Amino acid sequence: MNYIEIIGFLAAFSTTISFLPQAVKTIRTKDTSGISLSMYVVFTIGTFLWLMYGIMYPSLPVAVANAITFLFAGIILVYKIRYK
Amino acid sequence: MNYIEIIGFLAAFSTTISFLPQAVKTIRTKDTSGISLSMYVVFTIGTFLWLMYGIMYPSLPVAVANAITFLFAGIILVYKIRYK
Repeated sequence: MNYIEIIGFLAAFSTTISFLPQAVKTIRTKDTSGISLSMYVVFTIGTFLWLMYGIMYPSLPVAVANAITFLFAGIILVYKIRYK
Repeated sequence: MNYIEIIGFLAAFSTTISFLPQAVKTIRTKDTSGISLSMYVVFTIGTFLWLMYGIMYPSLPVAVANAITFLFAGIILVYKIRYK
């Protein structure tokens, strides 16, 4: 693995794992006032499309990273709709 | 362009543009109480790493999409730090 691939994997790990503290915060506090509904609708659809792309291309890192991000973003979206 | 590539471009467009309504909402309302600081620190670093990866790999769509997302996420992060 060369250093460009290492940067790619660090990038994928960072953008995926970053949604975990947001999901935890939203579940704990149910405070969704500052969260944009439009963002999470479009973003959740986007991660689902990335998941489809990752499965069909195929690219395992893209598929796995977006399966996890889709789950986190979906949880935040459900809370935003329920507690807005 | 085949249908897998179309799905990839739709995915890139969706996850990039989704941060625009969040940035607009945050700038307008300055309401950052429900936003996770940890998420935006890690996510902004992540998009910067994707940008570096896109430049070096090189992949123009990855570079362009993440340059825009880095800008949006960076604005949200600055507001979160300033108005928390």
